Amino acid sequence: MNNGHNTTNAQEIFADLCAIRTQAPLVHSITNLVVMNFTANALLALGASPVMAHALEELPDMVKLANALVVNIGTLSSGWVESMRTAVTLAANYQIPVILDPVGAGATRYRTQCAQVLLQTAPIAVIRGNASEIMALHSDNSATKGVDSQHASAAALSAAQALSAQYRCTVSVSGATDYIVAPERLTLIHNGHPLMTRITGMGCSASVITAAFCAVNPDYFTAAVHAMAIMGICGEAAQKSTQGPGSLAVAFLDLLHNLDYPTIERSLRLESN
Amino acid sequence: MNNGHNTTNAQEIFADLCAIRTQAPLVHSITNLVVMNFTANALLALGASPVMAHALEELPDMVKLANALVVNIGTLSSGWVESMRTAVTLAANYQIPVILDPVGAGATRYRTQCAQVLLQTAPIAVIRGNASEIMALHSDNSATKGVDSQHASAAALSAAQALSAQYRCTVSVSGATDYIVAPERLTLIHNGHPLMTRITGMGCSASVITAAFCAVNPDYFTAAVHAMAIMGICGEAAQKSTQGPGSLAVAFLDLLHNLDYPTIERSLRLESN
Amino acid sequence: MNNGHNTTNAQEIFADLCAIRTQAPLVHSITNLVVMNFTANALLALGASPVMAHALEELPDMVKLANALVVNIGTLSSGWVESMRTAVTLAANYQIPVILDPVGAGATRYRTQCAQVLLQTAPIAVIRGNASEIMALHSDNSATKGVDSQHASAAALSAAQALSAQYRCTVSVSGATDYIVAPERLTLIHNGHPLMTRITGMGCSASVITAAFCAVNPDYFTAAVHAMAIMGICGEAAQKSTQGPGSLAVAFLDLLHNLDYPTIERSLRLESN
Repeated sequence: MNNGHNTTNAQEIFADLCAIRTQAPLVHSITNLVVMNFTANALLALGASPVMAHALEELPDMVKLANALVVNIGTLSSGWVESMRTAVTLAANYQIPVILDPVGAGATRYRTQCAQVLLQTAPIAVIRGNASEIMALHSDNSATKGVDSQHASAAALSAAQALSAQYRCTVSVSGATDYIVAPERLTLIHNGHPLMTRITGMGCSASVITAAFCAVNPDYFTAAVHAMAIMGICGEAAQKSTQGPGSLAVAFLDLLHNLDYPTIERSLRLESN
Repeated sequence: MNNGHNTTNAQEIFADLCAIRTQAPLVHSITNLVVMNFTANALLALGASPVMAHALEELPDMVKLANALVVNIGTLSSGWVESMRTAVTLAANYQIPVILDPVGAGATRYRTQCAQVLLQTAPIAVIRGNASEIMALHSDNSATKGVDSQHASAAALSAAQALSAQYRCTVSVSGATDYIVAPERLTLIHNGHPLMTRITGMGCSASVITAAFCAVNPDYFTAAVHAMAIMGICGEAAQKSTQGPGSLAVAFLDLLHNLDYPTIERSLRLESN
Repeated sequence: MNNGHNTTNAQEIFADLCAIRTQAPLVHSITNLVVMNFTANALLALGASPVMAHALEELPDMVKLANALVVNIGTLSSGWVESMRTAVTLAANYQIPVILDPVGAGATRYRTQCAQVLLQTAPIAVIRGNASEIMALHSDNSATKGVDSQHASAAALSAAQALSAQYRCTVSVSGATDYIVAPERLTLIHNGHPLMTRITGMGCSASVITAAFCAVNPDYFTAAVHAMAIMGICGEAAQKSTQGPGSLAVAFLDLLHNLDYPTIERSLRLESN
């Protein structure tokens, strides 16, 4: 499963986690209205510093301060799309990583098109979505039901590889198994628990946590792998002590805050190809 | 209290709950900014699939996918009212049930008028509000203090009956006792706990859960009854194991996820007239 | 530490808390999208009644109903700034206290300027911010990193005193020690716990709780002191029973709801100068 490198991988993950806790990178999100609170709490629990700002008037100042930018299309409107386009352009100028979360791509043509416009506006470091969203971004004709994936993540592998080649970026497909893809690179994370899908904003939290790791690790593929490992390890550990999705969300935040090296090493199920 | 039909009612409620868990109906909400996260989590815990979308550009695609629509006026602005009007018209075209939550109707004339405009735009399956809101919708001159009810739900019975007759819809008045009203039909639910009023979004969650039940049960009156029973049963069960409103909200989500038939049958206090 | 007046102070704090629980003052917030849910829950747990409304169409009716107004610039846009300006003007007409929370002032020039415009629009009862924000409001050239303070609260004392004199208001600087400043008045609160900074919306909750106390106590300086004491006491008590920021937020709400006089008297660490 882990190709004998579990200890090395766990050490590298923990080193990045310590860097986040020490540096408290500023992660600027322009995100959907549903998950703002939970994703901000996930970043704070992790040790990063969240900020939300979408006004065009303050984007130049805020992106300049930020160490990473997240754009998430979960509750779009035209003004917010304009802000996202401006922010990703500024991020390119300031050379900070941009994470795109194409929430609900495929559910409506508007979402799919907006995600594609953002991809074409400026370089994206990581696209982080579920299988249905990644397939929709690639083929434009994959039906998604709302914002929940209708496909196992393996089904999105070829779409992820094509997007990764086309946009020269990392594509992180979350699911029961997470597939993290970059040109000629592929890592699978087998951590996590199905109950995590019963909490809104878990996928969006994966995106902001990916941003925090990208802020401390310039190898964005590796940063995305580390982020998904942390998500999965905390989610499955949280599930063991809880009774349902309400308490799982609470325990997940506690675990992000308290995660230590032995837990990472003991829990990690990472597969490099 | 239960007219001897408790077992039958509990079985019907549980059958609808199982249908939600099996079918995972997509509930599309255009709702207020305060409760988006909690109501999405309530739907996920219940077994339904939430989506939020308010951009005019994507409403036709999203309403077409949805199995029920919720419009909630808790944090209105003119653009959002336009989106709600468009969405309820689309819902009528696609023949999916619409649930109107008139948050704060009566507190300001703008809210009362917007709720009335929505009622006149297209057929509404269920109006779900507290007593003050229902009275304000009917008479237009009932003072509400903010968004919390100033009246016991019984005080709103005649207003609910009048609205039900006028708009040929179900009216669900939540309170210490819930009154669910349709033309020539009336059911009371005596479940719940006063501490539920100390959590923001509990009423709004009643509305989205009503939507989920309407998505699986074409008798919207019965669906509304079942939804309020589930709300009350989970709320009072959650209260027994908790110390205050913070932990009550968490336990409520856990219970929505784990609710089983014996708990429903044991707890249900339903009164049909 | 408490100058021998601990019992008197605890009694006065508890008297205000009882007044909030009895009167359930309506606190109207025009606030940021990240914290709406948590701050509404904090007010409900405290015993107050929250309402959010930002549409110009309903501001006259809503401000008229309200007992206090909070304006919070955490996720600004031009329409919301206009709503805030209108609301503070209406609040002056209706003579209700206004609490300004200058979230992220100093991080961007836009935020700093908007906060200053609000200060110049109508009288403000209390400015409640962290040290970096208060320093930025005063000098306009203090760098803030996002929305988290880069300075200990003591560093903001002279800025707070200058702002207090300039705008004839109370300035409440939250931090490890809270500094509450008014012309010729200064009180320090030594309660609280560092883990509170790992929960988004804790500072914003301090602002809405300050508003609730101002609604029942016309001495806004004393109201601000009482609010910060309640925040700190509940936060540190919550921390004792919890494992991380997720469970701390839940326990904090429970404690706001259940706080009794003995806990206040036992815990209060207030220093009057």
